[in-house]
Amino acid sequence: MKTATREQLIDQLNWRYATKQFDADRQIDPADWSTLEEALQLSPSSLGLQLWKFVVVEDPEVREQLKAASWGQSQITDASKLVVLAVKKNITEKDIDAHLQRISEVRGVPVEALAPLREMSVGSVILGKDDAARDVWASRQVYIALGNLLTSAALLGIDACPMEGFSPADYDRILGLEEKGLGSVVVAAIGYRSSQDKYAGLPKVRFPKEEVLLHV
Amino acid sequence: MKTATREQLIDQLNWRYATKQFDADRQIDPADWSTLEEALQLSPSSLGLQLWKFVVVEDPEVREQLKAASWGQSQITDASKLVVLAVKKNITEKDIDAHLQRISEVRGVPVEALAPLREMSVGSVILGKDDAARDVWASRQVYIALGNLLTSAALLGIDACPMEGFSPADYDRILGLEEKGLGSVVVAAIGYRSSQDKYAGLPKVRFPKEEVLLHV
Repeated sequence: MKTATREQLIDQLNWRYATKQFDADRQIDPADWSTLEEALQLSPSSLGLQLWKFVVVEDPEVREQLKAASWGQSQITDASKLVVLAVKKNITEKDIDAHLQRISEVRGVPVEALAPLREMSVGSVILGKDDAARDVWASRQVYIALGNLLTSAALLGIDACPMEGFSPADYDRILGLEEKGLGSVVVAAIGYRSSQDKYAGLPKVRFPKEEVLLHV
Repeated sequence: MKTATREQLIDQLNWRYATKQFDADRQIDPADWSTLEEALQLSPSSLGLQLWKFVVVEDPEVREQLKAASWGQSQITDASKLVVLAVKKNITEKDIDAHLQRISEVRGVPVEALAPLREMSVGSVILGKDDAARDVWASRQVYIALGNLLTSAALLGIDACPMEGFSPADYDRILGLEEKGLGSVVVAAIGYRSSQDKYAGLPKVRFPKEEVLLHV
């Protein structure tokens, strides 16, 4: 059977936690990492526009610089992989057209046939939002990719720590994102928990189901 | 083995798509739905604060009203389940304290022992953000839950359609969210694809891995 079982899903979502201390000696298997990169690539986004890039930082010196821009949190250097999830800035009709071009390539349809989709996308994204609202909207999409990444990693038995405690301006400078038209939004450290991480054994804290889920 | 395989994960992420036409006659098995509700409940969030509620709309009349506030999109009424993901508005120190109280209950520690966490959380969420930035930040978290929900459903072989094309103000009014201190952010229709949905068979469109994933 290709699908996961209910038990697998819930067990792995209960197993995961925001890992505070990674095992710096344990690396993610390349086939597993390739799978997580593919999972990221497959993340859903509004209108399928994928207004993002995922920056995988391997260089230890760059990691040290990022750590200094992240309140010195050890996950930044200790985790096997570090992903900076970045959003496209200054989104224009060109970004819509890049997506339509890709649809045309993948599905073998002429771009001209996508005119109704173009009109709808430009109307919603470009004309329908001012610059500030467009940035807010695009950054929200990045959190879909984050949610997908965290769940995907958990399903594979790989630990992760989502992190907002960093200086986006410093990250953008260190990684040269601004000249690429990108801005860092959120970070995920990915690897394996240290046996020393005292948070690993604590019961997960969630509000009761009947408080969080309302039924109408 | 409890974890999913790499193939399961990628196959199911490739299998999923934003379902345009649901099979209105096919309902989600109650055990599957209970699992997805639990997956939602287990969604990660910044500092674990869970500043959200998930509104499951079953009432067909309410669904009809929501459909009228969603450009008439058929998913709103045809999908087996409809979830409105809502964020807490006007977040205050009381919301931090509700979380600390829950930690205290679940982990059996006195609230007083959580004073350092309280200081950190209040500093980050209340003092460190103005009202507008706090709303933006809280709404982003809801998209983690959305990403988790979409991936979880795909893993179970259940279809979903994430939807932003609706009037949040109308949704808030119809569902009585404002008086609960909530605001609708994004919607997920969940069920099974119709055999008539022409989008089901189209190749998935994603930018190439080497364009989306940068390595430093």
